[in-house]
Amino acid sequence: MSVETIKWVKGAARIIDQTKLPHKFEYIYCRDVKTMWQAIKRLSVRGAPAIGVAAAFGVVLGVQKFKGRDKTRFLKLFNATCEFLGTSRPTAVDLFNRLSEMRAVVDLNPQAGVPALKKALQLRAMSIFQADRRVCRQMGGHGVKLIKNGMRCLTICNAGALATVDYGTAQGVFYAARAKGKKFSVYACETRPLLQGARLTCWELMAQKIDTTLICDNMAASLMASSKVDIIFTGADRIASNGDAANKIGTYMLAVLARHHGIPFYVVAPGSSFDLKIKSGRQIPIEERKSDEVTCFAGVSTAPRGVKVYNPAFDVTPAKLITGIVTEYGIIRPPYAKNIHARFANR
Amino acid sequence: MSVETIKWVKGAARIIDQTKLPHKFEYIYCRDVKTMWQAIKRLSVRGAPAIGVAAAFGVVLGVQKFKGRDKTRFLKLFNATCEFLGTSRPTAVDLFNRLSEMRAVVDLNPQAGVPALKKALQLRAMSIFQADRRVCRQMGGHGVKLIKNGMRCLTICNAGALATVDYGTAQGVFYAARAKGKKFSVYACETRPLLQGARLTCWELMAQKIDTTLICDNMAASLMASSKVDIIFTGADRIASNGDAANKIGTYMLAVLARHHGIPFYVVAPGSSFDLKIKSGRQIPIEERKSDEVTCFAGVSTAPRGVKVYNPAFDVTPAKLITGIVTEYGIIRPPYAKNIHARFANR
Repeated sequence: MSVETIKWVKGAARIIDQTKLPHKFEYIYCRDVKTMWQAIKRLSVRGAPAIGVAAAFGVVLGVQKFKGRDKTRFLKLFNATCEFLGTSRPTAVDLFNRLSEMRAVVDLNPQAGVPALKKALQLRAMSIFQADRRVCRQMGGHGVKLIKNGMRCLTICNAGALATVDYGTAQGVFYAARAKGKKFSVYACETRPLLQGARLTCWELMAQKIDTTLICDNMAASLMASSKVDIIFTGADRIASNGDAANKIGTYMLAVLARHHGIPFYVVAPGSSFDLKIKSGRQIPIEERKSDEVTCFAGVSTAPRGVKVYNPAFDVTPAKLITGIVTEYGIIRPPYAKNIHARFANR
Repeated sequence: MSVETIKWVKGAARIIDQTKLPHKFEYIYCRDVKTMWQAIKRLSVRGAPAIGVAAAFGVVLGVQKFKGRDKTRFLKLFNATCEFLGTSRPTAVDLFNRLSEMRAVVDLNPQAGVPALKKALQLRAMSIFQADRRVCRQMGGHGVKLIKNGMRCLTICNAGALATVDYGTAQGVFYAARAKGKKFSVYACETRPLLQGARLTCWELMAQKIDTTLICDNMAASLMASSKVDIIFTGADRIASNGDAANKIGTYMLAVLARHHGIPFYVVAPGSSFDLKIKSGRQIPIEERKSDEVTCFAGVSTAPRGVKVYNPAFDVTPAKLITGIVTEYGIIRPPYAKNIHARFANR
């Protein structure tokens, strides 16, 4: 993969501006935490694992220009930075899990001075970055076993290189299958309102010469009814301890349709997307975004002025509709509450 | 209702150009059959009942300028006109049923001369136009009994005044409920790729001061899971003799989701939308439209150049997922094969 979604370059976090894809490829160099916060909020960088890494880099950006050795002032800035980044987007738990990892660097080194903490935070962010690269490839390695020659796969939103550092979760499975020389094809749901499927997933898959067909989200049911889908892979933004999984709006629709048509439905997500503090998906906060994402397109209004809009960015798929969850440790299967606990209890 | 979707005005069929709504209200005056064919093809006029009326007016446009009394030449022109109009769009059976009604005018009057046939065709087209107005209001009268105070209704595409002469099928039920003073609200699915829900349905419902909320199609499942939908009404483009119903792509998705969530799912369609010559929905031809409907928006490309696209304009909802079919004769309920036969066998 040659897509470098987020990378630390000479004191800045360089991100691909995903709002411009597929027709413009531009980088944004985040040199301060506010620029990173805005990049997350505006979806210039998106995808649960990627915004986890972005948050870690955001912490480094927030504290790196701190002058002096006054630890109280440093901790105040550090805490404010973490809190600020936590307000960017509510649903993906990777962001909060990665912020917790950054906080742990400070909490577990109470004797460390300011320069040592700055250095340790920088190292931790780089290790989070590297872990994402490794973990995505591990998930691909487990998920690839599910793809048989000739399979027609379906996915929604972008769970690819652009949703992670450089490889992907659900789409990482496709890349692993491609690397193994398997023959398969992919239907990509366009993913309204912001068309991450059309803009980002098709762009990535076509670059990898994977046979890709774009559909509108409302065509998935018809496709399944005509036996053109063999397996479904999606990412996740937060998985509760019972296996309920929040992901891009429309994912739950696919899960219900998959059950109706007897099609296996897999979630592909790293450990950083699990939230063991919550019992079920009912506790996952669902971000509602602005109405103009639905009513405008490329600056053109497509609905009557003043129409009411409901625009949740995510939905929750109950565990009972999920065939398996592909993680870096292997594929977790039902009963999820028991098996998720067994896998992650000690972390 | 003050929307006059299609109307005969001084020797021309005047239609509202629905491709321009909601922001521009413009008429197209069709003075020849080719202009009408293009208007149907380009969806300037759309909706099964409306294109049935458009086809009838199209026949009149095709023959009205015929000079002389040579019946052989007249019949050649008449047949060519009917055949030409039949190539505009394949799925909605109203178009073919209305063309058959026009053909019957000629077939049942073998002795009539050219002037008498021209007059009779004009009268038949006007009677088709009037029948649509009457039948829509009758469907509204039957369907309104299904709406209870406080209900949250869901619909897709446009099955309103703009899909008929001036009142609607599924949305006609809402207008009848409004006229009776019932309190209810409507969620409108935007209906990708051409956004008839966002552009047309919201425009119509807001003009009638009906509480309307726009959603993306992929949000319907989440809405149902959170118990925000009490009943679903959709139109139909062709209903087979076993009750299978073709309608705008996404309708089948709603029917599966409705069944999963225990929500009643009603189709509202006039007799002209039934095709008793076919046994099941498998025999309904599904129009596939151009890929740029999916990959472009307001002239802006939204997907990588050259991506493959699957763009069926309709899907088929099997009868077993339909709670009832509201017609001008009342609500037809399962078993559909038997009850549809009983209702229409003598027509």
